[in-house]
Amino acid sequence: MPKLTDAERDELLPTLPEWNHDAGRDAITRTFRFADFNAAFGFMTRVAMLAEKADHHPEWSNVWNRVEILLTTHDANGLSRRDIALAKAIDALV
Amino acid sequence: MPKLTDAERDELLPTLPEWNHDAGRDAITRTFRFADFNAAFGFMTRVAMLAEKADHHPEWSNVWNRVEILLTTHDANGLSRRDIALAKAIDALV
Repeated sequence: MPKLTDAERDELLPTLPEWNHDAGRDAITRTFRFADFNAAFGFMTRVAMLAEKADHHPEWSNVWNRVEILLTTHDANGLSRRDIALAKAIDALV
Repeated sequence: MPKLTDAERDELLPTLPEWNHDAGRDAITRTFRFADFNAAFGFMTRVAMLAEKADHHPEWSNVWNRVEILLTTHDANGLSRRDIALAKAIDALV
């Protein structure tokens, strides 16, 4: 899975307007907020199943109703199409 | 829920030998490693249910097979007996 080219970034990153590009990690990040822990962890469970099915997993953290997700492809040493696909699948949950 | 006294810390923290005391946050932390993401998230789901039942929630993060948990009591501005109880319940899962 190769790292995204400059042309692919120009095409794909604007399709994820809710995600921020972390240039230092070459990753994309998004913070989600929910009504409470129950809702936040319910969301995490749905993301976990997406991730397991795609065999591509987030780096993520949770505090009460907040979930922070960072996506990057360790094997590519940066963003790949797998991150874009997982971000879109996550966005479709909310 | 009051913050633990010095005497309570001397009594209770040694009962959690796998946990580290983060003096800056006045929190306790522990890192867990599992075979894979499936096992790590399965553990997180069990912890989430303990936390919800206790109405006391961790600050935590996950990367693949690793889960880092930090426990503190925001209302007490530091460690309370609720953190000790949740840590013991988490330890009993593994």
